[in-house]
This record gives sequence, C-alpha cells and structure tokens, in this order.
Amino acid sequence: MQEENPGTVVNVDAVELADDGSAVVIIDQTLLPNHVEYLNLTSAKDMYDAIFELKVRGAPAIGVCAGYCYYVLARQEAEAASDYADFAARMAKQRDYLNSSRPTAVNLSWALNRMHGVVEANAGKPVDQIVKLLETECKAIHSEDLAMSEAISAYGASLLKDGDGVLTHCNAGPLACLGYGTGQGPLFYAHDHGKEVHVFADETRPLLQGARLTSYELTKAGIDVTLICDNMASIVMKNGWVQACMVGCDRVAMNGDAANKIGTSGVAILAKHYGIPFYVLGPTSTIDQNCPTGADIKIEERDPDEIKTKFYAEPKALPETKCYNPAFDVTDHELITAIITEKGICRPPYTQSLAALFE
Amino acid sequence: MQEENPGTVVNVDAVELADDGSAVVIIDQTLLPNHVEYLNLTSAKDMYDAIFELKVRGAPAIGVCAGYCYYVLARQEAEAASDYADFAARMAKQRDYLNSSRPTAVNLSWALNRMHGVVEANAGKPVDQIVKLLETECKAIHSEDLAMSEAISAYGASLLKDGDGVLTHCNAGPLACLGYGTGQGPLFYAHDHGKEVHVFADETRPLLQGARLTSYELTKAGIDVTLICDNMASIVMKNGWVQACMVGCDRVAMNGDAANKIGTSGVAILAKHYGIPFYVLGPTSTIDQNCPTGADIKIEERDPDEIKTKFYAEPKALPETKCYNPAFDVTDHELITAIITEKGICRPPYTQSLAALFE
Repeated sequence: MQEENPGTVVNVDAVELADDGSAVVIIDQTLLPNHVEYLNLTSAKDMYDAIFELKVRGAPAIGVCAGYCYYVLARQEAEAASDYADFAARMAKQRDYLNSSRPTAVNLSWALNRMHGVVEANAGKPVDQIVKLLETECKAIHSEDLAMSEAISAYGASLLKDGDGVLTHCNAGPLACLGYGTGQGPLFYAHDHGKEVHVFADETRPLLQGARLTSYELTKAGIDVTLICDNMASIVMKNGWVQACMVGCDRVAMNGDAANKIGTSGVAILAKHYGIPFYVLGPTSTIDQNCPTGADIKIEERDPDEIKTKFYAEPKALPETKCYNPAFDVTDHELITAIITEKGICRPPYTQSLAALFE
Repeated sequence: MQEENPGTVVNVDAVELADDGSAVVIIDQTLLPNHVEYLNLTSAKDMYDAIFELKVRGAPAIGVCAGYCYYVLARQEAEAASDYADFAARMAKQRDYLNSSRPTAVNLSWALNRMHGVVEANAGKPVDQIVKLLETECKAIHSEDLAMSEAISAYGASLLKDGDGVLTHCNAGPLACLGYGTGQGPLFYAHDHGKEVHVFADETRPLLQGARLTSYELTKAGIDVTLICDNMASIVMKNGWVQACMVGCDRVAMNGDAANKIGTSGVAILAKHYGIPFYVLGPTSTIDQNCPTGADIKIEERDPDEIKTKFYAEPKALPETKCYNPAFDVTDHELITAIITEKGICRPPYTQSLAALFE
C-alpha cells in the first residue's frame, strides 16, 4: 500500500493494530518524506526488522508498537501452543527476540515486559482468556500514551500565544510519539484548538529528522513551517521571529539538565542570549531519579559516515577525515525556562520542582 | 589533468599563471574533495564560466584570478589589435564581460579595474610595452595578496599556543585566499612555524564548505582536523576542546559588527557562553568605512533547494516546504574578542581601533 502525500499525518497513526487484530500497521518512516508506505507486520522477523531498521522510531511509538507486536504474536502462538506452560514459554522467547532488536530502547523492554507480565500473572488460566487480556493491555498502553502526549501538549500550548514563532529541533511529534507528540506536541495541539503558530524547524544534522519528519508532519497538518539549517537559528532569533523554543528530551537529570538530540544545548544558549524562553517537553518517565546531573549521562557517539557520506550522491569529505559525531548533548538546567511533563509545568529550581513530581 | 589526493594543497596555488603566460591555471574547487582537477583557462568564455560556476571562489582568489585572466586576454588582443585605441577598446569589452560573471564580487571588479587602469594610464604607448606592464601588475596583485594573507596569518597565529584547539567555520584558507588564507590562515602558519593546533571544522551547511574545502585543505597539509556538524560546536566547546574560534569575514562595519557565512554569529554566542575567545580575520579592504553598524549590511537570501535537495541522492523535504536560506549573518561586535587584519590586531572598543586603521 503506497500513497503519495496524504492529507494529514496527524490523523494517521504511525502505529496501529489492524481491525481484525492480525497485524501491526506502521508507516515506514525511513521512506519519508518522498514516499508514504504502510507496512503490515505479522511475523516476528518482520517486527524485529522494522524496529531494528528504524522503520518505526521514537521512544513512545516503539513502546506502543512492541505491545501490539506481542499481542499479534500471542494470537499465533495460542493456536500452536499445547497448554499454558507451552504458551508462556513460546511468548518468553518472542519477548526476548523482539527485545534484542534495539537493546538500549527503554520503552521497548518496558512494553514487552508489561505484556509478558500479564501472561505470568495469569498462570494456568485458559490461553484464549489470556489472549483477550493481552488485547486489553496493548490497547491500554496505546491509550495511556495518547493521554500522556495530549496532557504534555496542552500544558505546552498554554505557554504559547496566537501568532507566536516557535523554533524546534529534531522530531518528537506524531510520528515518534503518536497523538500530538511531546517536543512538537504543543504546535499540533495549538493548531487544533484555534491558536496559530509559525514554526522554524532546524533540519537537525546529521540525520535530518527536522527536514525529513518534523517539517513533513507540520506541512501535512497545515501548520506554517519554515525549514532552516541548524546554523540559521541565531539569525532567525535575531530577526525577532521566535517567541519560544520547544524541544523533546531523551533523559532528564534531577537537577533539570536535559539530554536530547545533538545541537539542543546550542539552541538553548542562543535562546538565552536573545532572551527567548526555552522549553523541554517529555513524559515523567524520561526523568531519571538515579541521575543527579547531566554529567552522569553518557553520550552515544555514532558512525562518522553519517557526516561524510550518508544521504549524499557523492562523499562530502575525504575518506580519511576524522569526525566527531555525538548523537545527543546535555542542555544545562540554567538554560531551560521550564520542563513540561504530563503532570504539569516545572520551573527552576528544578532540584525542588522535579523531586516534587515523585512525591 | 587529474590527480587523486595530491600531497598538499597548501603548496599548490589554487590560482596561478602558466609559465609561458598563455593561460590561467586553477584547481576546479567544485570537484573537491573527490577529484583534484586543474583547468587551463585561455578563452574569455572559459574564464567567465570558471568564475560564474564557482570553480574559482573566495574573494582574494577571484581577484588574483581576474588579474591573470585580464593579462592572458591582453596578450591575445595585442596580437589582433591594429593600434592602441583598438587595443584599449577591446580590453574595455573584455573587462566588462568578465566583470559580469559575478557582479557582486568586489575583488573581481577591483582587480579588473586596476588592470584596465594600467591600459588607460599609458594611452598611446606601444601595445607590446603595455602588455609588459600588465604582466607586472597582475603579478603584483598576486604577491600583494600573499603578503596580506601572510601578515594576517602571523598576527592570528600569535594568539594561539602550541596544542590549542581551534574551532573554525566555512572556508577562508589557501583555496579561497591563496597563500595561508585569512580565517584559517593562522592554522597553516602555526603549523609551518612549529606550533601544532587541533582544529574542529564546522561542516557549514547548506553548501558544506567546511567539509568539502576546509577539512580537505587541513588534512592535506597534515594538520589535525576533526569535522563536525554545525550543531556539534556547543558540545565540543563544553568538552573543553576549544581554546579559540577563528573565522573569516565578508564585510566589517566600523563598530566591529562582522558579516560572514551564515552560522558565524551562533558560533560567537556559544564561544561567549563558554568563555572562549572569538577572532575575526580579514584584510582591511573588507572593513567598510561607509557602514556604521551591522544593521546596514544587507544579507543575501539563497535558493531553498540548497537546503532541500542539493548534494542529496534523494530530496530531504517535501517540494512545497518553505525554507529560509540566508547566506550570511552578522556577528555583533560585543561577541568578538579581536578583529585581525594585515595591519595588526584590533580590540574593543572597535569604533576607535578600526577607525585608527584608516588614519
């Protein structure tokens, strides 16, 4: 199934369960923005490949996808299993197999373990009955995710005025997070609730998520968006076109230091220089109570070819060129105006406001 | 003539006059870093195309190239001309033709007018004799340029210590400026004088001059260079790897505000945040005495396809995506630690130190 330029991506879930429950349907995000292709995942191998190859990406989207994948496989294994013990053993294998597709993706193992916990908590019950409970559980993961994303988006949108310019970095919108999203969620929420914003989307080198995904999602939703290279953020702010910066987060320390896609800390420093508020948005699950400061967050370093050759028709630097290619950076809490979760808006001092979330 | 990976580009001039004076020899900069191809320019059409298509680029390199082009054409027209008046008329036409290849390039018209001034100042003299004077003049343009670039580079290198990390943006090295260059000149000068530096080269989106040219030149010269995406400058500075930033300039206002490749102002803001000195390097000819502040500098806006499609195997944003693609930005004088010209090192307050250069 392939469709060029559908009307809106916000009304098309990036991950959903087929009506008859036999497949997980995803948009292949690796083909955007040039092709919109839906994939029906029915085998464990196809599911593994889709996650491994980043056809489905974004922590919340991976979690929801994993829940549905587990359920679809449980239906198949229920047919083949001789009894509860056999079914539980088969599902433990499937869980481990899917979980190995992206071992560092927390939402993946979280969702798979939550689903498998239903199997273990109902030991000895008829397998058919357990499959029904699994259907309820995977749909709950999805609806809880949508509620979380809507709450974050509503809180974030409350910080924006009609006509505001908003600069954003990377992608944490409907494709990554389902529903409205987190980092870009307030833009879609504001639009749906009659408030118009003008978005400046950093292209986000080296993997260009801002160009390929964020500007795509916003364009399809009919929201005014201007794509810029990362190094143009300074002049856009200087021109007076930006009233707020909004970004997602991968991990937040208890002092408010926030790890997010590489380049985020630079945007925050520019915003501080120009006196523009800088907001970090994400679920409370990304706030790491075991992490006191950003210095405790290890930054993943990636393949130099993402800088030198990927996407290009011809290489853009000599093969022997040394590269430094960190995937994330940590934005110092002093540069962050507020951290927005589904529980509300936290302001400095973060050591107090973040701790209060967990009391 | 094509050569893969020659030993060093610093010892190979990007522009030179053929030994017999019959051609201008340039490196085709559009083919770097994948191919090193030299072009022999003998006809006015080839010269025009080389400048128009950016095969030769960088203000000083264009000026030197234009001087040599004028001389090579003068030798041809001297053969064809019936007398001085005919020769002068033919050369006025050639000057105007070459000048139209890049109308906004100041060094182009400056060099062509300087050459044509020699013809006009020697009205009525034998054409052969004027051609000899033109040979002296074009070689003078080149050697004055080398001396200017060496002086800037020596002043800049005096601000660096052995082992320093230096972050740079875009390209103002040997290919653009001949000799050592301006913005990157101190890196080559320091290396040639026994001081080693570790360079971080911003790739410089959208046209990637940092990846294609700066990292190429430094690698070929045996200088330690690490290529980064523009948005990685913040983390590189935070890591403590950068002791100075050095950039070239396209135009400097009398209060010290400096226009340079887009993204430069962002680097300066990051440097200020991390307490790192930020140096602007260029000849006094780029200081515009008719320009009081950066607000008086008009910024060129370029084709959106440089962001969306250029260089890529496939487009990276929807065709209808709106883009903002300014070529330059202005770095506020408050963010600049020093402005380095061939006459020395100017420090704040720039309204005094820059004015003193012209007294």
